[in-house]
Amino acid sequence: MSESLREDALKIINQAIRAVYPEDAVKKALSAIFATDTGKSGSQGFVEGSSQGFVSGKKIFVLAIGKAAWRMAKAANEGLKGQICGGLVITKYGYSMGVIDGFEVWEAGHPIPDENSIKATERALEMVEDLREKDNYLLLLVSGGGSSLFELPTVGVSLSDIVDVTNQLLKSGASIQEINAVRKHMSKVKGGRFAQIATPLRVFSLVLSDVLGDKLDTIASGPAYPDCTTSEDAIRVMKKYSISSPPGVLDALKLETPKSLDNVETRIIGSLSVACASAKQAAEELGYNASILTTVLDCQAREAGAFLSAVACEVVLRNQPIRKPCVIIAGGETVVEVRGDGLGGRNQELALSAARGIAGLKNVVIASVATDGTDGPTDAAGGMIDGSTTARLEEHGIAAEEVLLNNDSYHALKAVGDLIVTGPTGTNVNDLMLVLCK
Amino acid sequence: MSESLREDALKIINQAIRAVYPEDAVKKALSAIFATDTGKSGSQGFVEGSSQGFVSGKKIFVLAIGKAAWRMAKAANEGLKGQICGGLVITKYGYSMGVIDGFEVWEAGHPIPDENSIKATERALEMVEDLREKDNYLLLLVSGGGSSLFELPTVGVSLSDIVDVTNQLLKSGASIQEINAVRKHMSKVKGGRFAQIATPLRVFSLVLSDVLGDKLDTIASGPAYPDCTTSEDAIRVMKKYSISSPPGVLDALKLETPKSLDNVETRIIGSLSVACASAKQAAEELGYNASILTTVLDCQAREAGAFLSAVACEVVLRNQPIRKPCVIIAGGETVVEVRGDGLGGRNQELALSAARGIAGLKNVVIASVATDGTDGPTDAAGGMIDGSTTARLEEHGIAAEEVLLNNDSYHALKAVGDLIVTGPTGTNVNDLMLVLCK
Repeated sequence: MSESLREDALKIINQAIRAVYPEDAVKKALSAIFATDTGKSGSQGFVEGSSQGFVSGKKIFVLAIGKAAWRMAKAANEGLKGQICGGLVITKYGYSMGVIDGFEVWEAGHPIPDENSIKATERALEMVEDLREKDNYLLLLVSGGGSSLFELPTVGVSLSDIVDVTNQLLKSGASIQEINAVRKHMSKVKGGRFAQIATPLRVFSLVLSDVLGDKLDTIASGPAYPDCTTSEDAIRVMKKYSISSPPGVLDALKLETPKSLDNVETRIIGSLSVACASAKQAAEELGYNASILTTVLDCQAREAGAFLSAVACEVVLRNQPIRKPCVIIAGGETVVEVRGDGLGGRNQELALSAARGIAGLKNVVIASVATDGTDGPTDAAGGMIDGSTTARLEEHGIAAEEVLLNNDSYHALKAVGDLIVTGPTGTNVNDLMLVLCK
Repeated sequence: MSESLREDALKIINQAIRAVYPEDAVKKALSAIFATDTGKSGSQGFVEGSSQGFVSGKKIFVLAIGKAAWRMAKAANEGLKGQICGGLVITKYGYSMGVIDGFEVWEAGHPIPDENSIKATERALEMVEDLREKDNYLLLLVSGGGSSLFELPTVGVSLSDIVDVTNQLLKSGASIQEINAVRKHMSKVKGGRFAQIATPLRVFSLVLSDVLGDKLDTIASGPAYPDCTTSEDAIRVMKKYSISSPPGVLDALKLETPKSLDNVETRIIGSLSVACASAKQAAEELGYNASILTTVLDCQAREAGAFLSAVACEVVLRNQPIRKPCVIIAGGETVVEVRGDGLGGRNQELALSAARGIAGLKNVVIASVATDGTDGPTDAAGGMIDGSTTARLEEHGIAAEEVLLNNDSYHALKAVGDLIVTGPTGTNVNDLMLVLCK
């Protein structure tokens, strides 16, 4: 009955994830820049003031940081054939996939920075130093994980100070915004300081965002983006949570990060909102009315499932908020409150919870999927359920309520064939949820 | 800053609740029926086949059951001046408000039926018996609470059997659907049996719904609505949960409830969906784009607050799912997981949770309100927050996170003036939530 909805859901998910592949996103962005350069498509250009684009004869250096750095650098190297004077990749251990011509490839610590983070970042600064001329370009490719991979303590601070203060803050109950204010002011490259050092080099920053809401000063700690936090914020946080540190750290926090940068242009080339927009487009191409409810959902997974199923019921009851056939899209990073010792992930838990809410309804499918293809410690990317899921579970002697209490969504969905399995996708912009009704 | 949004939110809430006042709803419905009768407005008429409406010279008897029964009966008596041959009200202890000309007014047990429930229901059957002619009318006014107020055990079953079996079911883990299947088959008047007894009397049933999704066979156990549960269902449930009962009960369960009734016409005159539709209309009249996300939300209150704030953030970030200025409406009956010993209610907890999600945002207001004017064991109807609420709480030394852990939303919202206080409204269709953005 719901087979065609299920097929359509998978098509939409595939198209959405494809839109945020590092390779595709980088190549698409570079071709848009080239298009501007040759006057083909002014409106597709980088940002205001960049109509010069990449001019032949100038030096272009590529610095790629983050978990997707190797893939992004490889794509840039292919896209800018022969125009690159050099490049450097800093990615997580195990995330590089071989040699890229003209590039140094480094692997370093994540989620805690290590000595390799420092060495690779020092090497990046050396290479940038050689290019510091107004007519040269730095293509900065940023992806999630960059905070720990690209790090250099500022004057008077050591790597162990950073690790120690960060650990104290994590235990103190400080918010992530508060922690970031301190971390940025302890660093030589975070909070826009890297781009400041590189001045007058022109920096084009292409960002694959794994942060809900795409806060550019937060993704990889914003090495080339004006900092929204202040020295005052950082010092206040240290006092508020009574964080102990050597005098060098407190002195360092007194120095302000840049609040504006006129040598940088930034574009988000992949993010959850890009994936959601692509899902909407795919749904519309398949003949559905489509709407994006949110791209910043961060509530509990099972409650998100209950909420989305309540929206699905409303479509069935009164053909609102949008008319059938419809796809309602949400993006986010939900959380699981672990109470049991079962196997699952936030997307599978969301889907199983939603199955209770739409039990018995026809022509409704709800899917939730991790865009990186790995939901929790499982081989599944997520789950896809319909109005018959709870009945099918019951046929297997499985009660959804008990499964949720034990956080064992994986085995339940597996038993009834309602897992989504994609394998690792090579990108990560968090989670995509779909409600399909016809 | 958000003052105009707050004023508009209160206007919208007032108009939505006004739309489901028992008095207004009954009078509006009766005038629509009369309009049809006099040929003024065919499209407003009751339902297909009722174009005769109330014809002068015929006898009209009014039976009102439920917590709003007295108010509904009073309004019907005023609306049908002099045309009523008699009436009977069965409401909860303390819920009647004096004499209604020509009516017997009974008060009975709620939520557990008592001897008065039985006596009043017997009296209703006696009075209906005298009217059982094809040309007479019964105006049945149904509101929440009717299940225990209007009850008569079927042959072979006693009131104590009903109370005993129901208590066993409640402890067994049986679902509300399963419990209702058994209760309906133990009763002489539930599950459509009352209307069956009244045949050939024509029954017009006006329903004020307090059940999410307005399931007509569930509201007051559907005395005049075809039953969706079967004798087989009821017997299966007794076995499934090993419920013990005298042989009379098991024999009684073998008799089927009616699956169709051709002497009944039913109209929902007030419900959460009516309130939400009225809220939408009020918002549009104030110049907002408006959308109803759902009218059947039943997830955790604080997570509903997180979800709605994520939708508000999306409007601020990308002007979707609907364009500013906008009001996003949700209706439901959320639940609170009580962990602390503070004071609050589900609407206040939802609002406080949402305050975390929109902290710092301008031009956003989120409100959640109990339509009966009483949220939890407090004198508030709910809460209304904006992007400055968490900062104002902090000025009072209050951390939203800690307040939520202690379920103490009342004192926190009171401290910053973010409670909504309406006093009892005299109606109840569960909760209304609004997100306003401009």
